[in-house]
Amino acid sequence: MRKSIATVSVSGSLTEKLEAVARAGFDGVEIFENDLLGCPLPPERIRERAEHLGLRVEAYQPFRDFEAVAPDRLADHLRRAEHKFRVMERLGTDLMLVCSNTSPGCADDDALAAEQLRRLAERAADHGIRVAYEALAWGRHVDTYLHGWRIVRMADHPNLGTCLDSFHILSRGSDPGGIEAIPGDRIFLLQLADAPLLAMDVLQWSRHYRCFPGQGGFDLTGLLAHVLRTGYAGPLSLEIFNDGFRQADAGRTAVDAMRSLIALEESVARVLGTGSPLPRPAQPEGFAFAELATRDHKRLGGLLGALGFARTGQHETRPIELWEQGRARILLSRVHPESPTDTSLVAIGLESADPALSAERAQALLAPVLARHRAPGEARLDAVAAPDGTELFFCDTGRAVWREPFDAVSPPSGHVGRIDHVALGHPWDQFDEAALFYRAVLGLQPHESVEVADPYGLLRSRAMSDAAGAVRLTLDIAPVGARALPGQHIALADDDIVATARRLRALPDDVLLPVPGNYYDDLRARFDLGEERHRELRELRLMYDRDEYGEFLHLFTVTVGRVFFEIVQRVGGYRGFGTDNAPVRLAAQHTPAPSPAPAGDGD
Amino acid sequence: MRKSIATVSVSGSLTEKLEAVARAGFDGVEIFENDLLGCPLPPERIRERAEHLGLRVEAYQPFRDFEAVAPDRLADHLRRAEHKFRVMERLGTDLMLVCSNTSPGCADDDALAAEQLRRLAERAADHGIRVAYEALAWGRHVDTYLHGWRIVRMADHPNLGTCLDSFHILSRGSDPGGIEAIPGDRIFLLQLADAPLLAMDVLQWSRHYRCFPGQGGFDLTGLLAHVLRTGYAGPLSLEIFNDGFRQADAGRTAVDAMRSLIALEESVARVLGTGSPLPRPAQPEGFAFAELATRDHKRLGGLLGALGFARTGQHETRPIELWEQGRARILLSRVHPESPTDTSLVAIGLESADPALSAERAQALLAPVLARHRAPGEARLDAVAAPDGTELFFCDTGRAVWREPFDAVSPPSGHVGRIDHVALGHPWDQFDEAALFYRAVLGLQPHESVEVADPYGLLRSRAMSDAAGAVRLTLDIAPVGARALPGQHIALADDDIVATARRLRALPDDVLLPVPGNYYDDLRARFDLGEERHRELRELRLMYDRDEYGEFLHLFTVTVGRVFFEIVQRVGGYRGFGTDNAPVRLAAQHTPAPSPAPAGDGD
Repeated sequence: MRKSIATVSVSGSLTEKLEAVARAGFDGVEIFENDLLGCPLPPERIRERAEHLGLRVEAYQPFRDFEAVAPDRLADHLRRAEHKFRVMERLGTDLMLVCSNTSPGCADDDALAAEQLRRLAERAADHGIRVAYEALAWGRHVDTYLHGWRIVRMADHPNLGTCLDSFHILSRGSDPGGIEAIPGDRIFLLQLADAPLLAMDVLQWSRHYRCFPGQGGFDLTGLLAHVLRTGYAGPLSLEIFNDGFRQADAGRTAVDAMRSLIALEESVARVLGTGSPLPRPAQPEGFAFAELATRDHKRLGGLLGALGFARTGQHETRPIELWEQGRARILLSRVHPESPTDTSLVAIGLESADPALSAERAQALLAPVLARHRAPGEARLDAVAAPDGTELFFCDTGRAVWREPFDAVSPPSGHVGRIDHVALGHPWDQFDEAALFYRAVLGLQPHESVEVADPYGLLRSRAMSDAAGAVRLTLDIAPVGARALPGQHIALADDDIVATARRLRALPDDVLLPVPGNYYDDLRARFDLGEERHRELRELRLMYDRDEYGEFLHLFTVTVGRVFFEIVQRVGGYRGFGTDNAPVRLAAQHTPAPSPAPAGDGD
Repeated sequence: MRKSIATVSVSGSLTEKLEAVARAGFDGVEIFENDLLGCPLPPERIRERAEHLGLRVEAYQPFRDFEAVAPDRLADHLRRAEHKFRVMERLGTDLMLVCSNTSPGCADDDALAAEQLRRLAERAADHGIRVAYEALAWGRHVDTYLHGWRIVRMADHPNLGTCLDSFHILSRGSDPGGIEAIPGDRIFLLQLADAPLLAMDVLQWSRHYRCFPGQGGFDLTGLLAHVLRTGYAGPLSLEIFNDGFRQADAGRTAVDAMRSLIALEESVARVLGTGSPLPRPAQPEGFAFAELATRDHKRLGGLLGALGFARTGQHETRPIELWEQGRARILLSRVHPESPTDTSLVAIGLESADPALSAERAQALLAPVLARHRAPGEARLDAVAAPDGTELFFCDTGRAVWREPFDAVSPPSGHVGRIDHVALGHPWDQFDEAALFYRAVLGLQPHESVEVADPYGLLRSRAMSDAAGAVRLTLDIAPVGARALPGQHIALADDDIVATARRLRALPDDVLLPVPGNYYDDLRARFDLGEERHRELRELRLMYDRDEYGEFLHLFTVTVGRVFFEIVQRVGGYRGFGTDNAPVRLAAQHTPAPSPAPAGDGD
């Protein structure tokens, strides 16, 4: 299937847009009128540019408020159209997108609309141009795709077809099954857009909140299956009005867009039972390791030691330490000299039954493949970059090749058994991109997106996990426009968190995040835990949550650079992440440490 | 009237919030539960802090999902309440806000709700605490204020009253006239929030889009008048859930909040015919001058000269030049050495019939008064800082005191007669604050807010003007999260823009912004202007617009630093600002100048 994108979907000048979408591998573009008007190049030169970049100009759009008008207005509307036809000829495209009329003056008269669209199609035919009529969800009288199609059928001209736009169909709640009644060769264009399921004015929803397929709540796979069953042979064309994409890096957006289409092609192939060119997803089977880069090995090593980890190995040729406890493994490497933070999470090792296949799939989904400088003789490790720059290594579950250069002693056993989850911090505009990446590349399923009040802004957070909970990631997103990134953390699964907390409280160095007393006073109101349990939680700085499946106990360490650790114990089948406690934790993380003496204020 | 604000309305730790709202002049606060929970201070210390800052703790909130439950749940809910009562005693507040139950388990049974609330009020009375019951717009069964009031009346306990929240009343479209049926002493709390008129899910609307009175679309003056007629003597308390405020500077938000209440008090005093403590608004009568600070006097002077301005004076004691044409006056001063831009708009002189009164009003509305360093003997100039930092000078319409130190020659007369409007550029989060400032301080009326597509993000723009059009400002707002600020410009009214444009085209230095040819091709489709007129526009780089009142011709100069000039001619009664042309103008401003030779690409 040809892959196309409307130029309105990415940021920049028209020439920048064309370059970005060509680089991401698109076959074609729809030229959005405003992008043409603001471009200093005449249409002929834009056509050359596109050709040079291997891009077909699939359509010129939109032409508005044409049909179902009083007969005396028609001449002026045809005059407008003639000007557009001339631009299209110069631009080298033969498809004009006409939106259903939204103006108050147009008539609720299908026969009139059809007659006037036929006139338009006749004129278009003189220029070798085809017209695709699209029912806008907020069209004055024509606002459903089947109504639009009835008018096209009534007009009955070979140069007039319909344009289907998934947003206009699904936002109205129309049943897309009716698409199969339309002959595929009368669907001149298929525009694809997803959107989060919002209860709001459909025009505002469409103009600001569209997103790429798989990033919202619409069933685009089902819709595309219906369209393909008609025999439609045109492009899959993304038309995404999104405030964020308008200002994001064009190259990055174009890759995100292309990834969404590749993933959509795969899922529709599954529905239709046709073959997919993608390697099948090899779900990660656990965390092989997490790697922290730091300027302060001593401090971080001290913290890991306090948590019960031991340094089990040193990389043969590179300055990387391996710290272990049970099956929880942390690598400590040196931070890049130019890094703005002294400590951050830089890599995650994911166990895979077939690392090469996992990497191949990631690459097919446009994840940047990382070239690691390796010493001669070192084993190959397959790695790609995640959206936030974290390196993802695919590690053989059966044979820990990555561990070989460490020549490590046996890990100590303690209460910490493994990594429960890893929380990654993203800038405010990477929410949808990151979720799509982990879903498509790793096959993780998104949990509900939640909002968490930080004292300095609203964070968003979304967990992603496989069904078994072997790999859980939480994607934390900075407040809109914020420059600082959220913290990153590694949550460690503990089988006796009370014992661990007691040991940590007894240490001379205070490594635990203080929790406000007001939290514990309120906990007493929230849950009837009994006085003794309550006192223990307060004393040990443990936070508490409960869901219908079980209980959750957790504690946090102080933060080093961008990184902190969480110790968690899931009792019963608790499925969450203690999100109700997150605002208090965030407030505590912002609270300056009390001055040691004399007895200070505490804030 | 006491003025209060809920701590959720501003950013920061609880102690930072208290300090910010005290500094802005508030009398009290509602303590939002999450702010308390995250605070390291115990409630007693928070109480001391508030007292020390002169703040009364008006309420503790919210207590949720209490009433109309199965009898076996009541004991647990009362247990919860007892914990909150104890916290409130320590906090030193006697008012608890209880929201109508939203949980699926509660019964649609007013008698049960009333009985259980009565039980709560009895317990509260033992602690000297009062309970204010509030109907949430999304309450499960109780979602209108009159329904809430009926239940309070039915419960009939002196410690139970109602809380009215303007958002919950007006978002539901309830008639606020019914408020007058409630005895004022049974209204325990009035919460005020405005909001833009959005068609969306009311919960999301409430949680993210509330704003300060006068910044949205609700008639808060009318609602407040109803409340005051009941004899209500409690505080006006702002409870604003707004994603922007959560992350903005707390001090700035608190001042914005206080300004909104002062302006609301004035407008309600007008409705009730009571006296207002504010000096009456003295509407500006025209632009006295605009001041540009620059590192490059020569370049800017050259540009002004090309536009027909002459340097008519030099400040006696300071390095400021006066440039004039007709009644358009531009001051050129030296840029602050630490300014990041080489040229920016720094001040506007506004003609006022009573400058001292205008300044007094601005000060009463918390505009920062500017202390200008003046030479001895210089006349006093009243000036305040606008939200974007622009200095606003109030200048006597009758006697141009500001002009005296220039000892200037007579201005030349040309086609430019006066300043038509000035466009100010704001960061993305100052939209509502700026509009409220100009409306309250200067008495300007807001036009419709519009969105303008820049190639690198969506700008918002809102014009503000007096009824006569003597002073027009446009507030341009950067895309969400963008670091760069929009350009600033001075638009000059011209009585023969064609002659001016012809002269400018003939100059050896090209000072006009190039306009893409595609714009003119499309203009032919948009308007039937005739070939000759069309050719003239294209040749002279004039842009064109039309509304129901008349025509608009405009052109733009190149940009120097952050600043460019626009020349405009309003033909007939055209009221707009040529906004339809703004995307093309913005695209042209982003287009790099073509290299001089050999004939380049143009982009």
